[in-house]
Amino acid sequence: MQKTLAEIAELIGGEVVGDKTLVITGVNGLQEAKAGELTFVSNSKYAPIAKETKASAIIISRDMSIPGKTVILTDSPSIAFTEVISLFASSGKSKFKGIHASAVISEDASIGNNVSIGPNVIIEDGVSVGEGCAIYGGVFIGHKTVIGKNCIFYPNVVIMDRSKIGDNVIIHSGTVIGSDGFGYEQVDGKHKKIPQIGIVVIEDDVEIGANVTIDRARFDKTFIGRGTKIDNLVQVAHNVSIGEDCIIISQVGISGSVNIGKNAILAGQVGVVGHLTIGEGAIVTAQSAVMKSIPPFTKALGSPARAYADQMKINACAQRLPSYVKEINELKKQVKELKEQIDNGSKAKNN
Amino acid sequence: MQKTLAEIAELIGGEVVGDKTLVITGVNGLQEAKAGELTFVSNSKYAPIAKETKASAIIISRDMSIPGKTVILTDSPSIAFTEVISLFASSGKSKFKGIHASAVISEDASIGNNVSIGPNVIIEDGVSVGEGCAIYGGVFIGHKTVIGKNCIFYPNVVIMDRSKIGDNVIIHSGTVIGSDGFGYEQVDGKHKKIPQIGIVVIEDDVEIGANVTIDRARFDKTFIGRGTKIDNLVQVAHNVSIGEDCIIISQVGISGSVNIGKNAILAGQVGVVGHLTIGEGAIVTAQSAVMKSIPPFTKALGSPARAYADQMKINACAQRLPSYVKEINELKKQVKELKEQIDNGSKAKNN
Amino acid sequence: MQKTLAEIAELIGGEVVGDKTLVITGVNGLQEAKAGELTFVSNSKYAPIAKETKASAIIISRDMSIPGKTVILTDSPSIAFTEVISLFASSGKSKFKGIHASAVISEDASIGNNVSIGPNVIIEDGVSVGEGCAIYGGVFIGHKTVIGKNCIFYPNVVIMDRSKIGDNVIIHSGTVIGSDGFGYEQVDGKHKKIPQIGIVVIEDDVEIGANVTIDRARFDKTFIGRGTKIDNLVQVAHNVSIGEDCIIISQVGISGSVNIGKNAILAGQVGVVGHLTIGEGAIVTAQSAVMKSIPPFTKALGSPARAYADQMKINACAQRLPSYVKEINELKKQVKELKEQIDNGSKAKNN
Repeated sequence: MQKTLAEIAELIGGEVVGDKTLVITGVNGLQEAKAGELTFVSNSKYAPIAKETKASAIIISRDMSIPGKTVILTDSPSIAFTEVISLFASSGKSKFKGIHASAVISEDASIGNNVSIGPNVIIEDGVSVGEGCAIYGGVFIGHKTVIGKNCIFYPNVVIMDRSKIGDNVIIHSGTVIGSDGFGYEQVDGKHKKIPQIGIVVIEDDVEIGANVTIDRARFDKTFIGRGTKIDNLVQVAHNVSIGEDCIIISQVGISGSVNIGKNAILAGQVGVVGHLTIGEGAIVTAQSAVMKSIPPFTKALGSPARAYADQMKINACAQRLPSYVKEINELKKQVKELKEQIDNGSKAKNN
Repeated sequence: MQKTLAEIAELIGGEVVGDKTLVITGVNGLQEAKAGELTFVSNSKYAPIAKETKASAIIISRDMSIPGKTVILTDSPSIAFTEVISLFASSGKSKFKGIHASAVISEDASIGNNVSIGPNVIIEDGVSVGEGCAIYGGVFIGHKTVIGKNCIFYPNVVIMDRSKIGDNVIIHSGTVIGSDGFGYEQVDGKHKKIPQIGIVVIEDDVEIGANVTIDRARFDKTFIGRGTKIDNLVQVAHNVSIGEDCIIISQVGISGSVNIGKNAILAGQVGVVGHLTIGEGAIVTAQSAVMKSIPPFTKALGSPARAYADQMKINACAQRLPSYVKEINELKKQVKELKEQIDNGSKAKNN
Repeated sequence: MQKTLAEIAELIGGEVVGDKTLVITGVNGLQEAKAGELTFVSNSKYAPIAKETKASAIIISRDMSIPGKTVILTDSPSIAFTEVISLFASSGKSKFKGIHASAVISEDASIGNNVSIGPNVIIEDGVSVGEGCAIYGGVFIGHKTVIGKNCIFYPNVVIMDRSKIGDNVIIHSGTVIGSDGFGYEQVDGKHKKIPQIGIVVIEDDVEIGANVTIDRARFDKTFIGRGTKIDNLVQVAHNVSIGEDCIIISQVGISGSVNIGKNAILAGQVGVVGHLTIGEGAIVTAQSAVMKSIPPFTKALGSPARAYADQMKINACAQRLPSYVKEINELKKQVKELKEQIDNGSKAKNN
């Protein structure tokens, strides 16, 4: 893959300052780039580092300048660079083209145009796969699952029966969609399994990391809204509903029937107790344990999670606890002395 | 699948109030049900919602009534409904029938009657699979593993060599049984691997969620007792022993050689330090860090985990810490003033 | 597998006290061993248990004696025993010999001598596998990945494209190497994916547990240093660098661009916020939340993590919080009484 700076500038709507005929062979970070590569600076505070880069050219914003360097001026260097990366990296993606002979695909399944299906993939009865999907080796797709267009499922993803998945959904390796929810009832002191007959629904533009688990609903559906991004090793229990454009960071655990509004952010290792609501735009910071519902557009922290400002005050106090204990002991001593002084004074007066 | 109310009532030992010839085509939750479907109410507090359901009939307990609705009276609506679900949902399960041609099964393995083995399954030498098991695509079963009757292993489960698994065990996708325990000894400043040559033993009626890891013992066995249920993404380290009928919720981590009594409950994201004992019937609430053994039939909470009542008192105090700090400061001020008053008083007297 | 005590003693440089012709058929723990088996005692405090073992012989250190038992004297019983285990257990490992016909291996891949490749393995273009590697069934190796000598990859491991893996690396089942880092930028209120075009580099002698996730870098590399050991279900985000000989225990989560020095230990369920540094030899205890960098050779604890001694003092105070609150209330009462006494005294004097 080779492109001139002029070709790249045209792609991103930018303007070259310097040699337009320069040939670019790859893209890289500011500090990692080598000769022949293109990089970018998103923020003028990195300009000093940018002067030292070995990259042959730099994408910068229109209000910046880096003397002595060949640059492309754009409105948004970061977004422009992402476009250029797609150009160079796309040829590196290891998608199988076509359908591998070893894939086991039900005759009853419907496979769209330009779908790639890797070795050892299993696609059961009644599955529908939309056009342009790339399904890597070892993926399992259970019966009657419906998949939209242009999805990417990486190796060994498991999607159990009757799931509904939108367009442009990316699911990383080892993730399991539609395993049974965790539900039992006590019968004679034993745990009797409650059937989990609902499904999982994942809307368009969702990305799900590696080794995530999303359980099917008892009835109805477990739901992931459009544009939501889920990191690795997250647990989403049965009947959870996550709104649009949420960010769920690694190792978060969301218990059954939790309802999360759109644009919410749950940081790493957060746990949420069942049946709670986390409001639109709410933020829960790392490792918090959510034991009460969180109002919209608020920030929560702690175990149990409380309003951010309250918990920060508590943390500040907790940090000084040993000195407060000293103060209490000092006070006890002083009060005892005062008491003795007064008692002695009284005695003196009485004598 | 279609059944009349009379047929369903007979199955669950119930009594129809209304049209016995009504045809039921499916089952669903109270709020999700549509015409033609059967639902249930487990608790009279849901009676107002039950009046609004679109379901054609409702299973209720003998002491309830929902005027204007066709119902089946039973002793235990929830358990009865679970039986009905099994009736309707069983036809929906995507078990492969028979043994798929692509499965790689050692000639030395013993496979019982009515076993289903999906595509790309790998079964090594000396494995024994009991009758009625359903093994989905992509499952790996290591050599000399013994599996009882009527187990279900979902896609891409891995069971390493010499594991022993009872009857009616369900293991969800991506779970790994019998990986090496995490054990090293320091030799010249390097971590030298300690061989893990024990096994994993899983008794009857255990269910294990998706992407769980259960390590083999160093010697002897890692043990999961009869009827215990384990949720997704749980870690069970080497030589752990979990008693019968326990509930281990998602993302719990149990360190090496921990011993858990029967009927214990570990809530989500709990961590347990190595070599501790958690007594029979003990409950550890979510996100607690167990750093001392927990006595039987007690409830523990916190990080580090303490007796529930103690920790709740500590939490209540912690929540009010900032106001206590104000009180301490107020006390310091008052004591200082008192001291000055007394000192002034003494001086006045002395003058 | 059968060996005489004399043969075993020679292997480990030990000295038999008792019958050298005794035939050993297996190895086991002190309490689990049966007749015919060899066991070991690492510490003289276990001598009383050792007297009760059913093992036919015991490896002990040169300064110990167990009257009435046949023993092998060595310098380091634990290390010696590990060597003996390798002798007996190696024949039990279920490695496929040779290359299974069902494996899908690119013609463009380079496979070393004595490599075993199990059923349904997928090896893409440009992959290089060093001599002596054992690759179990269902493993996926993405294009241009380079793998050293004598590695073991257990079933269903996924290694995405362009990863670099050293010699003697062990990766347990279900682990995913090289999934995309979790990175998005806000464009018009939506999360736009930032391409992750870096790689994962794993040095020699690393062992990685089951269902671990290690993301590829945005640029450059995510790095695991020589000899580091990672337990099950750990999350390593993009651009993390972990030094040599670290110990990372189960369910730890390490956020993006964290830098961990050599010989550090992160205990179970620890979380580390992005871009921090954990110094060489630092220890972070279980379930801590690291929110500031940790200096070298220090121990940290708590959520947020603080220096060990500080946090232990805080914990001790926190435990006694309810009694401190009582003391504050008692002080308030006493101060109030003193005030009244003084005021009354003043009034008395003034009257």
